[in-house]
Amino acid sequence: MTATPAQLIASIAQLRRTLGEVRGRGQSIALVPTMGALHDGHGRLIENARRESDCVVVSIFVNPIQFDRHDDFDRYPRPLSKDVAFCAARGVPVVFAPPVEEMYPRPQSAFVEVTRVTDHLCGQFRPGHFRGVATVVLKLLNIVQPDRAYFGEKDAQQLAVIRRLVDDLNVPVKIVEVPTVREADGLAISSRNQYLNEEERRVATVLHQALRRAETLIAADTKHAAEIRKEVLPLFEGHPEVRLEYFEIVDPDEMQPVDRITGPVRVAGAIWIGTTRLIDNMLCRPLGSKAGSAPAP
Amino acid sequence: MTATPAQLIASIAQLRRTLGEVRGRGQSIALVPTMGALHDGHGRLIENARRESDCVVVSIFVNPIQFDRHDDFDRYPRPLSKDVAFCAARGVPVVFAPPVEEMYPRPQSAFVEVTRVTDHLCGQFRPGHFRGVATVVLKLLNIVQPDRAYFGEKDAQQLAVIRRLVDDLNVPVKIVEVPTVREADGLAISSRNQYLNEEERRVATVLHQALRRAETLIAADTKHAAEIRKEVLPLFEGHPEVRLEYFEIVDPDEMQPVDRITGPVRVAGAIWIGTTRLIDNMLCRPLGSKAGSAPAP
Repeated sequence: MTATPAQLIASIAQLRRTLGEVRGRGQSIALVPTMGALHDGHGRLIENARRESDCVVVSIFVNPIQFDRHDDFDRYPRPLSKDVAFCAARGVPVVFAPPVEEMYPRPQSAFVEVTRVTDHLCGQFRPGHFRGVATVVLKLLNIVQPDRAYFGEKDAQQLAVIRRLVDDLNVPVKIVEVPTVREADGLAISSRNQYLNEEERRVATVLHQALRRAETLIAADTKHAAEIRKEVLPLFEGHPEVRLEYFEIVDPDEMQPVDRITGPVRVAGAIWIGTTRLIDNMLCRPLGSKAGSAPAP
Repeated sequence: MTATPAQLIASIAQLRRTLGEVRGRGQSIALVPTMGALHDGHGRLIENARRESDCVVVSIFVNPIQFDRHDDFDRYPRPLSKDVAFCAARGVPVVFAPPVEEMYPRPQSAFVEVTRVTDHLCGQFRPGHFRGVATVVLKLLNIVQPDRAYFGEKDAQQLAVIRRLVDDLNVPVKIVEVPTVREADGLAISSRNQYLNEEERRVATVLHQALRRAETLIAADTKHAAEIRKEVLPLFEGHPEVRLEYFEIVDPDEMQPVDRITGPVRVAGAIWIGTTRLIDNMLCRPLGSKAGSAPAP
């Protein structure tokens, strides 16, 4: 890792000037959009971005319009100087961390809505969430104008929303999907894991266990989603401190529930442990379905 | 006028290649988005664009998702070869005329919604219209990536919507507003004027007369919108073949109805004559309001 000092930029105009110079040198630009509280999952995004582009921009912005609960927005961690050091240690030259007033100088009137892909999973339980995500991601893409932008597979529905907005709105950027990074026991790394106490952290792995069980069943050619749910859902019942929000099997492109599994599917779940909400998902392939039959990244 | 042969391009990929070369030569690009059936109003947009940019792209696309009535979409004129000749005669190097399947290869899921600015005037009477306009304009801006894009003042609410989407979504383009071009009797030039028969064409000027009357009243310091409407609306009653859809006085930025006029206002109306719908508007200034107090273009 190069120990370049990361340049911390808060203003859109200054960022555009800096990136105009980068572009003028014929260098390619990668964007890694984050809400900060950076962890190894973000680290993986940055590694991929550095490998494929000349100049990596990490944006750090806790986007108010994607939070459906005010308390969640308020308590979301914002360890900015730690995050900047994290980026610097990974050779990121530019960190863009605008204040809310820079991104929303007046009440927002223009929004990006992605229909259909947002009907199920998190979209069903977090009203307005994906509208806020799609809107801020498009803003960031327009501000940075990167050649590539990097997103984690952990937020699979978010990725489907972003792919869709990029395709449907002809945004000139390549979206790169990076696999989920997990703890040793399988828990997907997330900024929200730090909310968990020791006991909550221990039971949090149930979501990953449920996904693995579904993966095994699908690989063993269990064809009906209902059958898989019937096998998997009892796993959650063993943990009274866990409240299951959803556990669904959907097609990986449009995120629509699948009854009969004939190709790769996305299995996705959301649970609450106390006041903390965790999500995770896996792409699962039935027997005989080739890796190549998944939607192209 | 240079008699450059205009290059007619139907594919997004080919347009991007062509414009990549233009950009590579360090030349600036202007976009004039149209639905074709080009007339002197478009001619004025093109003149302005040519004066300020190196390469003018005129897009011609009758956008299905902005039509609230299918019959209006079906009968909208599409004189493509005449339009291409019109562009060539005005020195336009690139005409982009994609088929519907090129712009919408599958059912659209991602849309741009502009709230508030679309609540009144046409937005109230044409459900989904501005969502369709905002979405296709953003697609065209992303495809062409122009330095400047030109729109006519005649569609003032459309312009307010586009300014808002560009500002709120940080689209890197300058929006240029071009004044309405009128016939000798004041009728605003529009592709839909060709639907009018001789008698309809004659009465169509009532909308412009009403706007002029409002302008005079406002310039003479009539302060209350209600008073202006009371003076102006009887003009329409003299023409039983004209059905008034709306006649409103709004603020020029957010397009919200104004009760008391204290600065520049946009006076806007829509009428039906037979099966033809016509719109027009004027920016009107009260006594003592300086030209400079209008919102910056």
